[in-house]
Amino acid sequence: MNNAHWLLPEGIDELLPPQALQLERVRRDLLDLFHSWGYDLVQPPLIEYLESLLTGTGGDLDLRTFKLTDQITGRTLGIRADITPQAARIDAHQLRREEPTRLCYAGTVLNTRNDDFAGSRCPVQIGAELYGHSGEESDQEILSLMLKTLERAGIGNVYLDLGHVGIFRALAEESGLDKQQELALFDALQRKAVPEIEALLDACSIDQAARSRLASLASLSGDDALKRARQSLDGAGASVLAALAQLERLAALLAEQCPEVPVHFDLAELRGYHYHTGVVFAAFVPELGQEIARGGRYDDIGLLFGRARPACGFSADLKMLLRLGSAANLNDATGIFAPADNDPALRQRVDELRAEGRRVVMALPGQRGDASAMSCGEALVKQGDNWVVQAL
Amino acid sequence: MNNAHWLLPEGIDELLPPQALQLERVRRDLLDLFHSWGYDLVQPPLIEYLESLLTGTGGDLDLRTFKLTDQITGRTLGIRADITPQAARIDAHQLRREEPTRLCYAGTVLNTRNDDFAGSRCPVQIGAELYGHSGEESDQEILSLMLKTLERAGIGNVYLDLGHVGIFRALAEESGLDKQQELALFDALQRKAVPEIEALLDACSIDQAARSRLASLASLSGDDALKRARQSLDGAGASVLAALAQLERLAALLAEQCPEVPVHFDLAELRGYHYHTGVVFAAFVPELGQEIARGGRYDDIGLLFGRARPACGFSADLKMLLRLGSAANLNDATGIFAPADNDPALRQRVDELRAEGRRVVMALPGQRGDASAMSCGEALVKQGDNWVVQAL
Repeated sequence: MNNAHWLLPEGIDELLPPQALQLERVRRDLLDLFHSWGYDLVQPPLIEYLESLLTGTGGDLDLRTFKLTDQITGRTLGIRADITPQAARIDAHQLRREEPTRLCYAGTVLNTRNDDFAGSRCPVQIGAELYGHSGEESDQEILSLMLKTLERAGIGNVYLDLGHVGIFRALAEESGLDKQQELALFDALQRKAVPEIEALLDACSIDQAARSRLASLASLSGDDALKRARQSLDGAGASVLAALAQLERLAALLAEQCPEVPVHFDLAELRGYHYHTGVVFAAFVPELGQEIARGGRYDDIGLLFGRARPACGFSADLKMLLRLGSAANLNDATGIFAPADNDPALRQRVDELRAEGRRVVMALPGQRGDASAMSCGEALVKQGDNWVVQAL
Repeated sequence: MNNAHWLLPEGIDELLPPQALQLERVRRDLLDLFHSWGYDLVQPPLIEYLESLLTGTGGDLDLRTFKLTDQITGRTLGIRADITPQAARIDAHQLRREEPTRLCYAGTVLNTRNDDFAGSRCPVQIGAELYGHSGEESDQEILSLMLKTLERAGIGNVYLDLGHVGIFRALAEESGLDKQQELALFDALQRKAVPEIEALLDACSIDQAARSRLASLASLSGDDALKRARQSLDGAGASVLAALAQLERLAALLAEQCPEVPVHFDLAELRGYHYHTGVVFAAFVPELGQEIARGGRYDDIGLLFGRARPACGFSADLKMLLRLGSAANLNDATGIFAPADNDPALRQRVDELRAEGRRVVMALPGQRGDASAMSCGEALVKQGDNWVVQAL
């Protein structure tokens, strides 16, 4: 044991006054926003059996998940690194509704490694998920709510990255790639590592047209990517074209409903924990090289929990929203300092002020520090028989 | 991997709608209460180096703490099983104030075992801690805030158990017990295991008067325990009598300020994780055989983080407060169902209603379930050029 009992592990931070209160206020604001959109709060557990946490997700999430042994059963537990699969489990298994179900959450997740998404190993994931509808209207609702969330957090100048995992998946399927080839290509495409993509495609025995469609994904990014995709992907199968059409419809909805938000298309952007199946998107701000919120469609997780349900959602790190946003500036209402006096009339006055929402700090006999050291700009003072609040 | 991906580990629960929202409301109420008393919110991390988490605490907490290996440093991390020592670290090392410091928190803790305190392995610990003052006024402030917390959570009929660890510790010291003997006796006293206490004392070579004072602790419980203690502990050293006098002064303050709360004294009750040094207390309700909130004075933890600071605090499990309390009944304001219509005037009306704090659920094209299935008692209906809210 060394001397520095107060050192926190790398990538693990804590919030002190007043930041903790600022985070709490943004948290309340955003959960109230989700509530007003019809999203019901859930609080999934911090730990679960590892196999439950990883159901329907990729090896990426596995590597990020801290493992524990359950002393009661001897089984392996995981600390959640992502709340989205937990919400999918709740929708598919616990709630089992036929209607669209809207869920939201805010809670700490842990990462074994410094996460390039959150820049921390203990982000506070906040998000919303919409189950039971597969049209672009639900994608659009989630996208709008994500943009509204960033706006409410006081983050301006947001732009969107928009892609569709289904296009890649369908191209890979019609090219006859096996699972391993598909994963390797997925990974290389996500990094836009063109020479690696070429080498991987060379190693697969697929026909030239299919190969060129897959290779073209790496260059299908930019404002005009959808138009170019129509040409590059010409000749692809029906499911590729259906996915492209879906993306086009969502882009049209977005242009109509959120015309002020710049949209950047990227068909090679296949973000996330490999559970996405359709539209994927992320929000950025110019001053930061990493995404500040992300989401997409993931229709397959529910099936593994017993019931297939279309699914779409987004999430963000509340701590990052706090850092980037302007919403958190506290109105710094100062407190009222009350003397260390045992007068019942004083106690009653203090109770009343607190019930009115005022902050009253009681002096303790012999304490160090006056009202201003205790962050109080007012004090309770006895005038005649009454205790009155006086500015200092 | 078996089929039941949705099973949660024993003692691990989750909150679904509407309970999650109810918990959130009680959480906000209580944090607002703490704020109005001058307590500043902190959010310590979920994991720390194990040695930091266990600094100044007993083997009991060690056994309750889940351990992990940090992949970055190879060191052992722990998942917090108690937030109080984290708050003490923040006061002593991060804030380093000379004035009294008031901190509060609400967060999930994990227990390796089913906790007899919380009845769950994942309680949400909520609490308040007051540093930098050692008089009974700060004990009384914490006790009053604990009682106010239970009242705000809608829990009635609370009674208090009040003891003082310092009396036992001083008796053990003046009897010359070594650390191991003291711990064994501490444990037996806490269980009021009289034959075991007798056997342990027989094994120690201490004089008859000191022995009888230590043995008497087991019977010093009840409304009149303080009076009887004056006799049983007659002849004890100054620090025993000082601790007793402290307890008497706190009891007098309590009788004056909270006369409606029954108090039960118990000098053998040495609850907690072995870090308490002075007054200890717990709140009970008649219908439940276990404590629902607990706290006390622990003046030593700060020293190990670099600075000795008097300390006193209480905590409770928010989930238990929700279960026992009546504060959580939701006013179940129902939502407004909006049709799947792309009219910009509708979108604008929806935005306005949400900004007013109303809950508006958008229908999705082709969805199953009408307004009532979506928990909506009203709907947006077009009348002429306007969208108006109509009761259903």
